[in-house]
Amino acid sequence: MKNKLCEMFGIDVPIFAFSHCRDVVVEVSKAGGMGVLGMARMDPDRVEEELNWIDAHIEGRPYGIDVLMSGNVEDSGDLKYDPEKLLPQEHVRFVRDMLDKAGVPPLPEAEEQQIMRDMVKGMNFTPRESLEMVERAMSHPIKLIVNALGTPPAQLIERAHSKGIKIAALAGKARHAIKHKEAGCDFVIAVGTEAGGHTGDISSLVLWPNIVDAVDPMPVLGGGGVGRGRQFAAALALGCEGVWCGSIWLKTVQSEVPPEIKSKMFEAAADDAILTRSVTGKPCRTLNNTFSKAWNAEDAPAMLPAPLQNYLWWQEGRSRVERVRAKEFLTYPVGQIVGDMTEETSVKEVVYDFINELLDSKERLDGMLGE
Amino acid sequence: MKNKLCEMFGIDVPIFAFSHCRDVVVEVSKAGGMGVLGMARMDPDRVEEELNWIDAHIEGRPYGIDVLMSGNVEDSGDLKYDPEKLLPQEHVRFVRDMLDKAGVPPLPEAEEQQIMRDMVKGMNFTPRESLEMVERAMSHPIKLIVNALGTPPAQLIERAHSKGIKIAALAGKARHAIKHKEAGCDFVIAVGTEAGGHTGDISSLVLWPNIVDAVDPMPVLGGGGVGRGRQFAAALALGCEGVWCGSIWLKTVQSEVPPEIKSKMFEAAADDAILTRSVTGKPCRTLNNTFSKAWNAEDAPAMLPAPLQNYLWWQEGRSRVERVRAKEFLTYPVGQIVGDMTEETSVKEVVYDFINELLDSKERLDGMLGE
Repeated sequence: MKNKLCEMFGIDVPIFAFSHCRDVVVEVSKAGGMGVLGMARMDPDRVEEELNWIDAHIEGRPYGIDVLMSGNVEDSGDLKYDPEKLLPQEHVRFVRDMLDKAGVPPLPEAEEQQIMRDMVKGMNFTPRESLEMVERAMSHPIKLIVNALGTPPAQLIERAHSKGIKIAALAGKARHAIKHKEAGCDFVIAVGTEAGGHTGDISSLVLWPNIVDAVDPMPVLGGGGVGRGRQFAAALALGCEGVWCGSIWLKTVQSEVPPEIKSKMFEAAADDAILTRSVTGKPCRTLNNTFSKAWNAEDAPAMLPAPLQNYLWWQEGRSRVERVRAKEFLTYPVGQIVGDMTEETSVKEVVYDFINELLDSKERLDGMLGE
Repeated sequence: MKNKLCEMFGIDVPIFAFSHCRDVVVEVSKAGGMGVLGMARMDPDRVEEELNWIDAHIEGRPYGIDVLMSGNVEDSGDLKYDPEKLLPQEHVRFVRDMLDKAGVPPLPEAEEQQIMRDMVKGMNFTPRESLEMVERAMSHPIKLIVNALGTPPAQLIERAHSKGIKIAALAGKARHAIKHKEAGCDFVIAVGTEAGGHTGDISSLVLWPNIVDAVDPMPVLGGGGVGRGRQFAAALALGCEGVWCGSIWLKTVQSEVPPEIKSKMFEAAADDAILTRSVTGKPCRTLNNTFSKAWNAEDAPAMLPAPLQNYLWWQEGRSRVERVRAKEFLTYPVGQIVGDMTEETSVKEVVYDFINELLDSKERLDGMLGE
């Protein structure tokens, strides 16, 4: 395809695949797109392990990483995670009772302590540690760094550019996209409300052209609601240079999600991907589940502000639920496209279906409007 | 354009314009699209007046009407509107205090009584009266009836078809669209969450192709988030045969909305079109306003169930607010596309911009994918 982003990265099709799973990253890049590994909070050993594996399998194709960095690396947050002190007893009891009643066993003490240690470490991950993690990643042949937590810090942009690495950031509003552009990003990723994970209120159909115009002539990737070739065609028609997608890879054989969550996804309709504060404390689109529904009950306590609600779910809910894979409570961030996910396929099939349906859509437009 | 809906109605472009304003209907049809008059609850004299005017000005071009009919015409609803009895005093006081504090004067008694009479009449409008209204409309050369309240009643579909009139219905989920198809509709209108007015949760980008596949080969119009040519191109790329739009006409010189609301729209961002239960009791996307915000306050009473919340706004809020055009309280159903509405233009300009931008989008795709 003749396209700014294909030229920028030397890829065949501007399909940018966000995934926490290194297999997906490798397969997408090998199929002609661009795999982007979600790193979140990885310690240096894990970074080496994941990226070494990718380097060994990706056959020299380009790939990127996705990080969560606040704009100010000195800002380490004003709330240190301390599981003993932060959570109100009423809320802890509410979650414990809920799981007890549903027959989800409590964690064995040894496991609980290990989980707590891991959590405290994860929660207290500082922007400084994030920067070190990215620095480590930059010793690998990464071609792109995406920041999912606002405008990247100036020193990261400078450092990436000095190594010939492109940098981009997610935006849910035009004014955020303009900030990214002014800070020196190479492109922006416009993410509509239908996306999985933390998301805003504006739909892709309205947001994308809005951001395209706001940062013109900078390239824009359309994210949120993209899972097939027709949406890829729509993104290009709306002025985007390509697509950003994450949810669709969860259904693949390569995906990291456990079979119990996968089967929940295959049964889900588009509106089972609900936008809820219950899991992270911020609006996050995730698979509907008993925990999220419970907060709507009349006798439920009010949800805690972020990040406390997140701590509550991690500390009291998630580990207990995932340990026994209690299906009704299992959840995973996923977009409305989940309604289209009905069976397991390979990453390669998803990419090829994307391209074929894009071409069908093009033919359809040619037929209506003359070639 | 070569297109099923262009053939069905003998129109040049498949832009279907919903409007309560007869001027908009006439201008869209004259510009090559299809104007559809929102009738809601009109008495027979008003039907005659509106449609006679349209017939006199539309120069023989096709047009349609949009109605609100429940599937069962015998179902007259179980809740008769009686302003003296239905509304809890706590809620009435909450709204009165809010407006008193904001300096919005109470209604003069004579006006209040007239408004009450009109309201009681409107609220108690029966499905039977709706059917009579449509019967009256069918004595005019209408070419299309759209039902915005679910699958049209069987007798309406039969009656319309016997007169050569096409019939369609709105759907926010695939299963509703399938019901419309099975009942005998000629096409369906898939409406995403970004639309103005009553709307569901699923975004257009996800919903449209979903419904296209569900009712294939029946034609589908894409509605919700459509205000310009790029979205028109996206709708065609996503498998739709055309677009359904309402909000965008509100900004035109022909539009029915008062200047105070228009200027609020020109200042609004996409996420000022909020999905709220505060105005009608059901999720309705409308311009953010002080009344809607007030229900989020900690000391606010819980919102009433539909249709009581609607009665409350009509009886205690709307008339008082609109009489003096109290800007902070003024609202109007509008979609997220409101963020793109920044100045008044003519209906004809909107239609021509739609077509030009559609062609630009097509050219863009040609450039990327080869002609």
